[in-house]
Amino acid sequence: MTSLDLDPAFALHRGGKLEVRSTVPVRDADDLSLAYTPGVARVCSAIADNPELVNDYTWVSNVVAVVSDGTAVLGLGDIGPSAAMPVMEGKALLFKQFAGVDAVPICLDCTDVDALVETVTRLAPSFGGINLEDISAPRCFEVEDRLREALDVPVFHDDQHGTAIVVLAALRNAARLTGRSLGDLRAVVAGAGASGVAVTRILLNAGIGDIAVSDSKGIVHSGRESLHSVKEALARETNRLGLTGSTEQALAGADVFIGLSGSTVSEAAVAAMAPDAIVFALSNPTPEIEPSVAARHARVVATGRSDFPNQINNVLAFPGVFRGALDVRARTITENMKVAAATALADVVGDAVSEEYVIPSPFDARVAPAVTAAVAAQARLDGVARK
Amino acid sequence: MTSLDLDPAFALHRGGKLEVRSTVPVRDADDLSLAYTPGVARVCSAIADNPELVNDYTWVSNVVAVVSDGTAVLGLGDIGPSAAMPVMEGKALLFKQFAGVDAVPICLDCTDVDALVETVTRLAPSFGGINLEDISAPRCFEVEDRLREALDVPVFHDDQHGTAIVVLAALRNAARLTGRSLGDLRAVVAGAGASGVAVTRILLNAGIGDIAVSDSKGIVHSGRESLHSVKEALARETNRLGLTGSTEQALAGADVFIGLSGSTVSEAAVAAMAPDAIVFALSNPTPEIEPSVAARHARVVATGRSDFPNQINNVLAFPGVFRGALDVRARTITENMKVAAATALADVVGDAVSEEYVIPSPFDARVAPAVTAAVAAQARLDGVARK
Repeated sequence: MTSLDLDPAFALHRGGKLEVRSTVPVRDADDLSLAYTPGVARVCSAIADNPELVNDYTWVSNVVAVVSDGTAVLGLGDIGPSAAMPVMEGKALLFKQFAGVDAVPICLDCTDVDALVETVTRLAPSFGGINLEDISAPRCFEVEDRLREALDVPVFHDDQHGTAIVVLAALRNAARLTGRSLGDLRAVVAGAGASGVAVTRILLNAGIGDIAVSDSKGIVHSGRESLHSVKEALARETNRLGLTGSTEQALAGADVFIGLSGSTVSEAAVAAMAPDAIVFALSNPTPEIEPSVAARHARVVATGRSDFPNQINNVLAFPGVFRGALDVRARTITENMKVAAATALADVVGDAVSEEYVIPSPFDARVAPAVTAAVAAQARLDGVARK
Repeated sequence: MTSLDLDPAFALHRGGKLEVRSTVPVRDADDLSLAYTPGVARVCSAIADNPELVNDYTWVSNVVAVVSDGTAVLGLGDIGPSAAMPVMEGKALLFKQFAGVDAVPICLDCTDVDALVETVTRLAPSFGGINLEDISAPRCFEVEDRLREALDVPVFHDDQHGTAIVVLAALRNAARLTGRSLGDLRAVVAGAGASGVAVTRILLNAGIGDIAVSDSKGIVHSGRESLHSVKEALARETNRLGLTGSTEQALAGADVFIGLSGSTVSEAAVAAMAPDAIVFALSNPTPEIEPSVAARHARVVATGRSDFPNQINNVLAFPGVFRGALDVRARTITENMKVAAATALADVVGDAVSEEYVIPSPFDARVAPAVTAAVAAQARLDGVARK
């Protein structure tokens, strides 16, 4: 107990937030002879003969590694692997609580792309899935792409796809509420990091009308020089109007603003958006615009915070996504599976949709089962399920 | 359920033997805001400012990685990382059951020494200790040596040191029972793999009279050509009598036989040992000599099996060794700490020592606390404790 523990967050974290427990009894020598030697040797031999059995007779097919290098932790940035551990532990406990997925936090003392890919590849026999977390852009894109290529288990960078799924779900309901389809919407995404890129991609997959993406240098467009390959691809696939200039300039007449940048937008810029505007100011802890100010001009306002309506929280997605993928032993998570997760998540809201309810609460018990079922079903449709 | 599950070992293993659980409640948004964002960010920041705090506010200081490459699993040999998983899970559950240590099985898809060292070094921020397991000799020696050098947390290859501690404990009691000190004893160790080398070293440290070590080519002596550096060192430190020839030849007049080789020794060879001979026939599942046959000639007989008296079982050592080391945040496990563990383990038997009771049962509740206390105290004496 130290003075730090006067803060309830520290008091709760003392000693950590996780434990590993046995699911089988070891009360006496007989139990020991089954769970350990000599009985365990028969199970090992069977797996050596038929590697698929590892999924039936070990915990591997229910356990996910939550892997980070600590380079982009929350809003704190590159704080290193040890300081990242409380977040990874938190993620692991949410996996268990919301979807019964066992998860192990793995904070790695390397940041080089080759080293990260190599290390996770070597770890892979121990896990049924890999949840990448808080790895800075643009390295995160290459790390994920290469691991998806190398491994035959789901690899999912939650900062990208978890956010993207929940944003798409909320946007689908916001569009429905305001009588529009996704194809009717023109959006501005502020931020071309992990989440900005993934949100943009899922919205394109879901058929959004148009998107302009901005980074610290303004709108991404094909005329900009020395773009990273990821932004070069964005420039090709977005911004049909050929906008240039600032985020705020792009907002004039736009239907949707999605803030994922940590920067700010002015009240005037939001006021200049189209009628029935939709504002997702998702930076934490400080949204891009104060929600009450945004609400003067926008019909739907969402944030990343639990103390305002419409919280865009990744915990709505990742537990059910992995539960569904593990349940059918999916070899990968397809783009369709992500869109299916978003649709299922949006549908939980159903007819109760309102300006203050475009996305369910993280504690809505219907969420994880709905996402799980949708992801598993889509894995089968996409031919990536192995059971 | 398949026909395999008619075997109770398979039935018990279905779905694996471990789970990860939360130790803190997450019932509502308030709990979530402490265990996860935004509260967790304050804990992360504090650790970034003062890295030592990772031991207080995460589970790291109570969690051990049970790391294997699957190259020397039980008596099964090189069966690979997936088939090794049931053993590593079993080890993890024993860590928890016997000493409250959280342990995570990590089976690695690489066998090269450099790759193993590099991978475990990168994983190190996530763990308070590293238990190496079932890595084949002679690679296991270099892997452990280099990791001990690289990391400031305990690294312990259980096949070496766990076995060595329990053998030393049992031998200490067997010597006491027969009115001799360790210095009076001449021993033959059959097997120069992981356990044979470590047993030899701990017996030398504990002051045994003399040891001859044999491998598949007979007694290790300095006249043998092309010895691996590990055996070269053994040749220098052992075999003061300059024995050559077979294990059985060396047994003539010897006080102690320790079998760790999977080979066999004849009844005649055991009959030729000194009076009050001590025979530890530790190969599993088939001891080097049938215990009832050995007992015709030897005063004390031990095996690795639970269905005979005097079971030499590593579970008597590793949980308490790590518990003691973690409790004082030892930066390493010294040779003295291993000897202290053996002495504490031997002392649990106390005055009840007999031919059939030179080592406690794995289910003796006094064992882990005794080993823990001895290891922690010795860590302080050796100046490797950090709290």
